[in-house]
Amino acid sequence: MSDRERRVLDTLEQNRRRPPKFTSQRIDMSHGAGGKATHKLIEGLLLPAFDNPALAPLADAATLPLGDARIALTTDSFVVRPLVFPGGSIGELAVNGTVNDLAVSGATPIGLSVALIIEEGLETEVLTHEIEAMARSAEKAGVSIATGDTKVVERGKGDGLYVVTTGVGLADPESNLSSAAIRPGDKILCSGTLGDHGAAILIARGDLELEAEVLSDTRPLTPLAQALKDTAGPDLRFMRDPTRGGVGTVLNELARDSGYGVALSEEKLPIRDVVHGACEILGIDPLYVANEGKLLAIVAPESADAALEALRNTKGGEKASIIGEVREEPARMVVMHTGFGGTRMIDMLVGDPLPRIC
Amino acid sequence: MSDRERRVLDTLEQNRRRPPKFTSQRIDMSHGAGGKATHKLIEGLLLPAFDNPALAPLADAATLPLGDARIALTTDSFVVRPLVFPGGSIGELAVNGTVNDLAVSGATPIGLSVALIIEEGLETEVLTHEIEAMARSAEKAGVSIATGDTKVVERGKGDGLYVVTTGVGLADPESNLSSAAIRPGDKILCSGTLGDHGAAILIARGDLELEAEVLSDTRPLTPLAQALKDTAGPDLRFMRDPTRGGVGTVLNELARDSGYGVALSEEKLPIRDVVHGACEILGIDPLYVANEGKLLAIVAPESADAALEALRNTKGGEKASIIGEVREEPARMVVMHTGFGGTRMIDMLVGDPLPRIC
Repeated sequence: MSDRERRVLDTLEQNRRRPPKFTSQRIDMSHGAGGKATHKLIEGLLLPAFDNPALAPLADAATLPLGDARIALTTDSFVVRPLVFPGGSIGELAVNGTVNDLAVSGATPIGLSVALIIEEGLETEVLTHEIEAMARSAEKAGVSIATGDTKVVERGKGDGLYVVTTGVGLADPESNLSSAAIRPGDKILCSGTLGDHGAAILIARGDLELEAEVLSDTRPLTPLAQALKDTAGPDLRFMRDPTRGGVGTVLNELARDSGYGVALSEEKLPIRDVVHGACEILGIDPLYVANEGKLLAIVAPESADAALEALRNTKGGEKASIIGEVREEPARMVVMHTGFGGTRMIDMLVGDPLPRIC
Repeated sequence: MSDRERRVLDTLEQNRRRPPKFTSQRIDMSHGAGGKATHKLIEGLLLPAFDNPALAPLADAATLPLGDARIALTTDSFVVRPLVFPGGSIGELAVNGTVNDLAVSGATPIGLSVALIIEEGLETEVLTHEIEAMARSAEKAGVSIATGDTKVVERGKGDGLYVVTTGVGLADPESNLSSAAIRPGDKILCSGTLGDHGAAILIARGDLELEAEVLSDTRPLTPLAQALKDTAGPDLRFMRDPTRGGVGTVLNELARDSGYGVALSEEKLPIRDVVHGACEILGIDPLYVANEGKLLAIVAPESADAALEALRNTKGGEKASIIGEVREEPARMVVMHTGFGGTRMIDMLVGDPLPRIC
């Protein structure tokens, strides 16, 4: 074990021994927003209770031994409001979200389960639309919905429809994707424009006085993940889909877990003007806005250009770019280099600007 | 293929070709109660959309091929009200329910995922109680909670806490449990008293003017399922945990799927007096009341006594009994032989006497 690895393990070990205390008396919306409050809930309350080796890494998917193989398991609840939005709907999101958690873990999906919690009074037409969206998305992603469950709750005890999808996949025995694998100099690749999904939801809700059309980017990331694996091989260190909490949250987790710093180039960030505009009205940074069809990858410098090319040649990755790199310093932090030669800290998101975005 | 098998397959085939039409304009509480309306929703709407070989048998767990092995996948939403009730709570129920769906499929649990949908304002104390209940139940069942997800919805859009657990297990390569395996003369075994869970919930809700103490029977069924597999081997044809919809619903499904009749002996049904009393007040048959720690097994006649003995010698199976048998006629129906020499039909449950029981 190198000194570096030892330090990473020590940090992880310390974090485990001293979980943050969860001191809130009640759960509020911020605990579901994917930022600091969510982390406190998970690491202060859930992780200590459920303590086990599969859960400890807190990856998008857990891996579990099965004979000589390893299977990947991931679950996600979808409570997005409204159910249908420009570019997609809850059913599409629920299938793609879980397929993507498997894909960025380097796993090949085997099957999905779908649990529906329906509010009494939901129009059958609405339900049918979502069931057909799930079926279509599953087919598109090449995975089957193998089992399910349906519950109905009284009016006023739900919000139309909540969907929980769980995915099981076969972990790639060759792949060793992990935040512990990243090294200074590694490049940070992003498969396309940031914040589209979150902005589409906000505009659909009418929260903004904005007429602009932004479509959710929901899509299966399996082809992009496969292109990266094929091209970069062991030089592909880490992948993640920056959903709730956005790129800012994923990179903060990465910096914290790896012990390294992350440097972003503001001018390299692919963000649509209309998304920029929506975020300005709300006073939030597009870096924290959810994506549902974007992949973030850390690749060793010698394979970064080839990996970028591979993304750009794959459907859904046409606007991929290298947005930053891993550095020794500042350890455990994310900094943004602005166009004017300045730098600013990108911290973990505090509070809850975007509830029920997925 | 025997004539019998051909007939069963023909029936399954016909059912698949002509799914019941789902004609309701809106979802109501009956669609979540586990009876006829739930079946119409699943078979008229979900099954045709998600059509695939893993889903078609509609078992408690789907099996999916993985190399030479087969893995089992099962999911369940828990929306029980109240969250805590005599004998258990939602957290315990959520873990045991999913462990049991694997167990009765003959699978060995590998890991669970847990998704929480929390209503804004839930007291942390309540959440902590459930998280600890889940952790304790998982430990007791010998399975780890490997991954999870947390979402928060606004006040009035949930009901404290909903839990969705998904389980993945290793299917037993020796086992061929299926409704297609049952034969006339097979005995129907039940691992203990019926309706305890449902009665405990109803009494806890105060729906009944009844002071009696009934405890939920929630428990992991893995030891009972294992005892049956060890004792009866291939003579064990089928297992199911009669949860939502109770024994009446499971046996109706079995009769329909196998093409045989099911004959029950009223005097052999193990039902506590207090459960009988509660059901009488409500005007419902205890056969339709949910159990959360009972196992129903179909065993070839030559192994039935040994299987009964094995259940009685295993914790949680002390009150096991043989409650009926499979017969040629009346095909696809369940009949009850009463103490006075009469018989009555036990049909699929219509309507929704017991919403949010699990």
